[in-house]
Amino acid sequence: MDKRYSIGMDFGTLSARAVLVDVDTGDEVAVSIVGYQDAVIDDMLPDTKIKLPAGYALQNPKDYMEALESLLRDILQKSNVDPDRIIGIGVDSTASTIIPVDKNYMPLCMHDEFKNNPHSWPKLWKHHGAQKQADTLNRIAEETGQKFLRHCGGKVSAEWLYPKAMEILEEAPMIYDATYRFTELSDWLVYLLTGKEVRNSTVACLHAQWDPVRGFPSGEFFKAIDARLEKIVEDKLGTHVQSSFTRAGGLTEEMAAKTKLRAGTAVCMGNSDSPVAFPALGVLQEGTALLVIGTSGVFMLLSKEEIMVPGAIGMAKDIFVPGYYGHIFGQSAVGDIFEWFMNNLVPYKYYIEAEEKGISIFDVMNGKVEKIPPGKSGLLALDWLNGNRCILQNTDLSGLIVGITLSTTTEHIYRALIESTAYGLKMIVKAITDAGMTINEIYACGGLARKSPTIMQIFADILGIRIRIAESTQTVALGSAIMGALAAGKENGGYDCLEDAVSHMSHLSNKYYEPDSNKREIYDSCFKEYEKLHDYFGKGGNNVMHLLQKMNKEPHFD
Amino acid sequence: MDKRYSIGMDFGTLSARAVLVDVDTGDEVAVSIVGYQDAVIDDMLPDTKIKLPAGYALQNPKDYMEALESLLRDILQKSNVDPDRIIGIGVDSTASTIIPVDKNYMPLCMHDEFKNNPHSWPKLWKHHGAQKQADTLNRIAEETGQKFLRHCGGKVSAEWLYPKAMEILEEAPMIYDATYRFTELSDWLVYLLTGKEVRNSTVACLHAQWDPVRGFPSGEFFKAIDARLEKIVEDKLGTHVQSSFTRAGGLTEEMAAKTKLRAGTAVCMGNSDSPVAFPALGVLQEGTALLVIGTSGVFMLLSKEEIMVPGAIGMAKDIFVPGYYGHIFGQSAVGDIFEWFMNNLVPYKYYIEAEEKGISIFDVMNGKVEKIPPGKSGLLALDWLNGNRCILQNTDLSGLIVGITLSTTTEHIYRALIESTAYGLKMIVKAITDAGMTINEIYACGGLARKSPTIMQIFADILGIRIRIAESTQTVALGSAIMGALAAGKENGGYDCLEDAVSHMSHLSNKYYEPDSNKREIYDSCFKEYEKLHDYFGKGGNNVMHLLQKMNKEPHFD
Repeated sequence: MDKRYSIGMDFGTLSARAVLVDVDTGDEVAVSIVGYQDAVIDDMLPDTKIKLPAGYALQNPKDYMEALESLLRDILQKSNVDPDRIIGIGVDSTASTIIPVDKNYMPLCMHDEFKNNPHSWPKLWKHHGAQKQADTLNRIAEETGQKFLRHCGGKVSAEWLYPKAMEILEEAPMIYDATYRFTELSDWLVYLLTGKEVRNSTVACLHAQWDPVRGFPSGEFFKAIDARLEKIVEDKLGTHVQSSFTRAGGLTEEMAAKTKLRAGTAVCMGNSDSPVAFPALGVLQEGTALLVIGTSGVFMLLSKEEIMVPGAIGMAKDIFVPGYYGHIFGQSAVGDIFEWFMNNLVPYKYYIEAEEKGISIFDVMNGKVEKIPPGKSGLLALDWLNGNRCILQNTDLSGLIVGITLSTTTEHIYRALIESTAYGLKMIVKAITDAGMTINEIYACGGLARKSPTIMQIFADILGIRIRIAESTQTVALGSAIMGALAAGKENGGYDCLEDAVSHMSHLSNKYYEPDSNKREIYDSCFKEYEKLHDYFGKGGNNVMHLLQKMNKEPHFD
Repeated sequence: MDKRYSIGMDFGTLSARAVLVDVDTGDEVAVSIVGYQDAVIDDMLPDTKIKLPAGYALQNPKDYMEALESLLRDILQKSNVDPDRIIGIGVDSTASTIIPVDKNYMPLCMHDEFKNNPHSWPKLWKHHGAQKQADTLNRIAEETGQKFLRHCGGKVSAEWLYPKAMEILEEAPMIYDATYRFTELSDWLVYLLTGKEVRNSTVACLHAQWDPVRGFPSGEFFKAIDARLEKIVEDKLGTHVQSSFTRAGGLTEEMAAKTKLRAGTAVCMGNSDSPVAFPALGVLQEGTALLVIGTSGVFMLLSKEEIMVPGAIGMAKDIFVPGYYGHIFGQSAVGDIFEWFMNNLVPYKYYIEAEEKGISIFDVMNGKVEKIPPGKSGLLALDWLNGNRCILQNTDLSGLIVGITLSTTTEHIYRALIESTAYGLKMIVKAITDAGMTINEIYACGGLARKSPTIMQIFADILGIRIRIAESTQTVALGSAIMGALAAGKENGGYDCLEDAVSHMSHLSNKYYEPDSNKREIYDSCFKEYEKLHDYFGKGGNNVMHLLQKMNKEPHFD
C-alpha cells in the first residue's frame, strides 16, 4: 500500500510547529517550526505607545495566521510528499487563549476602531488581568451551588474563558458588545483551515466548564453575576460543542491554494496542547501519568471510575481518551521560572563560562546545581512566580525564597527554584494518591523533559517515581498528527478508532530517570517544610502575597 | 599656643584606617587607609588546603600588625607633623573579634604547632560557628537566673566571647589549654602599642557580660556549663577591667622606633568601633540616636535613667558616655547584604551600564531603585542574611524574599533588600519608643550613610525620622582621636574630661534626609507585614530557617 501521511500542528506560547508523520508508523518525516514575531505582548501594544498593566499577556493573531500558512507550506516542501498522500491534519494550541472575533471570525484587534484597546487582542492563557472577575464568579458559583465547581478543582481560574470575558465586559464594554464569539485559539485555527465555526469538547470542558450532560453553566448563573452576561453562552460562545476526536471539516479551497495542500483534506477538531500527549505516548490506561513540562507544567492521568481529586483543574469523561475519566492538574510556571532567573539574576561570569565551554547558560547552571547535594543549598522556595494554578487556584499568589544567607550563591538559588517546582508537583501527586489513585510511572514530554537531565533527575528523586521520557522532540505535534489520521478515517487511509491509531503511531523512548532512594529522607523532610509554607501563605495564614499584589497593581500617584 | 595633634585608629572588617586631627578643632590633617591582605578568611585557611566549615569567619593577625605599624608610619609622613606635637593615640576595632594568645600575647595561630587548626586563629565578630554553644550558655543562664541576661537582650549572642571560647574548648581543647588569654582585638592592639595587658570596659561590658558592680559572670555559672570553664575568667580573661575613657599607657620604645612616633605618647584604652561615634558626633545627650551603617548596622542611644529595652544587645552605665546609660542595638548585616547581592545576582548589563557611565555598580542600582515607588517592587524581604542580632538574637535565622513573580526584576529585589534593612531598624526603633524613650533625630555615619543617598532617604522615609549625616569620612576614627586627646590629659595639651574634648573636636554636617510623609502610609502597611513575618519565622511559628541551617551544616555523605 502507498504511504500515507498526517500533519500535526502545535501552537505554543512562543512558537508553533508542524510535524508530518507516516500514518503507519508514526515516524517523523519532516518538522517545521516558526516563532511568533510579537511573542508575548506584555509591555506595549504593538505599533503603539500604549503601556499594558502588570500581569497582561496578549498575542498578535497575525502571528498565528502567518505561522499556520507558512508551516503548512514549509512542511510540504521539506517532506517533498505528494499532497494527495496527506490524509489528515490535527491542530492543538495553548488553551484558554481567548480571541474576541467578529462575524467573519476576524479578531477585533484587526479592526482599526478597536486596535488601540488591549481588550480587543487575544488574551494568552497566562494573561493575569481577571483575578477580580474570577473571584466574583467563584463566590457566586459557590453561593448558588454550581455543580461545575466539582469538576474544576472548586474554582474557576482567572486564566479561563469567563473571567477574561467578564474583564472585557467591565473594562471595555464596547469590545464586549462588538464580539461575535469569544473563540478559543484551537477552534479559531480550525476555522481558518475549514471555514467551520466549531468548539471542541476538550477545551470547552476544561476552560469553559462545559459538560456533555449538563452543557454550559446556566444563564441564570451568569445573570446572578451581571445581567448583561445572561446570554453569554448563546450570544458569545455558540452552544454547539463537538467531540475533539471527530472530523471538523475539510481544508478550504482558499487554504489549499495558499498551502498547496489538497482541498478537502480531513481536519480534526482542535485540542488543547497537553492532552494530545496521551495518544502520542500511547497512554490509554490507568496508572501512568503524563507530565508535559516546559514553560509551565501539566500533569494528567486517566481513571475508569469517576474519582474527585481536590485541586484538579479539570475532571471529565472522554476529554483525553474516550471511555476514560481524564484528570488534569497544572503548574502555572516551571521553565518560565528558570528562564526568568537566567535573565534577571545570573552574573556575567556564568555566561562567560557558557561561552568558553560552548554550551548554554542552562547547561552551565545545571552542571553546578548537580554538584549541590540535597539540602545543601540551605534554601527552600515556593514556586508560585506565576501564581498557583493547582490546589490553591489563585493567580495572586507569588514566589518565596527562604534560607538566604551571605553564603548563598547563584546556583543555590537556582537549585532551590528547581526543587520548588518539583515540590509543587509532589503536592499534586499527593492529592492524587490521597484520593485513592495509583501512579506507577510518569511519562514526560516537553522542553525540560528532553533537554534537562539534571532537572528531571531532581524531579524523579523528589517525587520518588520513575520518569520516562518521550522520544520525539515533537510529542505534542505527533499527538495532533494522530488526531489528523483519526479525522481522516479508515476509508481515507487513516483510522476509525483511537486505539488503532495509537497502536500504529505512538512513540516512547527507553530513556528514564530512576529515583535515588538515598535522597528520599532529606527530600521528604524538605517537602514537609514546603507543605507548611504552602498552607500558611496559600490558605490564609498570612495574606502578604495578596497585599503585595494589590499594592503593586494599584495606580501610583507621585 | 603650638598646634597639638591626636591620632585615631579604627580597625574595621576589611580595612583599618588612621586619622590625624588637630586637637583644638578636630579638623582632619591626614588620613591613611590599609586593607587586610587576607580580608575575611571564610573558605580556606591561608597557605593550606584546609577548607573551613560554613559560617566560619577568621582573620590573620599579621594583617592587623602590619596595618598598625604602616598606618602610624604613613600618617606621620603624610601629615609631616613633628612627633612631639602628637599627644595621644586612640584605637577602636570590631568587637567580639577574639584572639587566643600565648603569655607573650602572640596569637596561637602564629605557632607552627597550632597554625593548621582554625580554632587558633582570630575569630571575627561575624564568625558563626558557636550557635550551639550560645544556646547551651543561654539555656543555663536562664535556668540559673543570671542577671547579666537583662543587660544583653536576654541572650548572649553566638558572636560574643564566651560562645567562641566554648567552641574552642569543645572542638579544639588543646588550643583552649594553650590559650593564655582570649583577648579582644581592641585590647590586643593596645597591648602592641603599650606592652600593657588591658581589657577595656566598653567591650568587656558589651561582649563579655562584665558589669562595674557585679563584675564578670560567676565561676559557678560557668561550672554549670562545663567544669573546665569554672575559672575561665581568672585563667583566660584576667579579671582587671579598666574604663575605656582612661589612659592605658605610653607608646613602647619598640613601637616608637618602628613608627618614628615619640615613645611614651599617651595611648587610650581600646574601644569598640561604634561607640566612639558618640564623641565624634558630639552626642552627649538623650533623644539623639546614632546609627553606624556600613557592612553591618549599629544603633545606639543614651538615657539618664536606667531603662530596659527588650532586644537591646547591650545596656550599661558609662559604656558610651560617662554618666549615661548606653543602649546598643545591632543589625548583623546591612551593606554586606547589598554587596552579596551585587556579587551573586546582578547580571552583566548593569555592570556594562556602570562602565559606560563611569559610576559604580551600586550607583547604577541605586539609580534604578530610586525610580521604583514604594510598594511597587511587589516584594517584601526579611534582612536576616547574617542572622538576627537584635530582638531575636539568633544567628541561625536567615533571609527571606516573598512576592516574587515572573515580572520581578533585579532592581525590584535590590529595593526589597534595602527596604528590609530599614524595616529591621524600624523594629529596633519601635522597641525603644515602646519602652518609653524618645528619638527626635538620628545621626548617621559609616560607609552607607556617606555614600548612598538613595538608601538613606529610604531609611528616613521608612523610619519617619530625620537622619543627619556625619561630616567626616572617618567619623569613627575621629572618635578614637578624641579618646587619644582625652588619654593625654590637659597637662599634656589634651583634655581632662570628655565634654571639653567633644566641644572642641566633634564634627557634624548640615546634610540630612527628611522623611517624606506621602510615603508613610504605604511603608507603614508594609512594615506591619514585615512584623508578621518577623514574628512568624523568628519566634517559633515556623522553624524552617533553623531546619535549613541544620541541614546545611550537617556533614554530607555521598
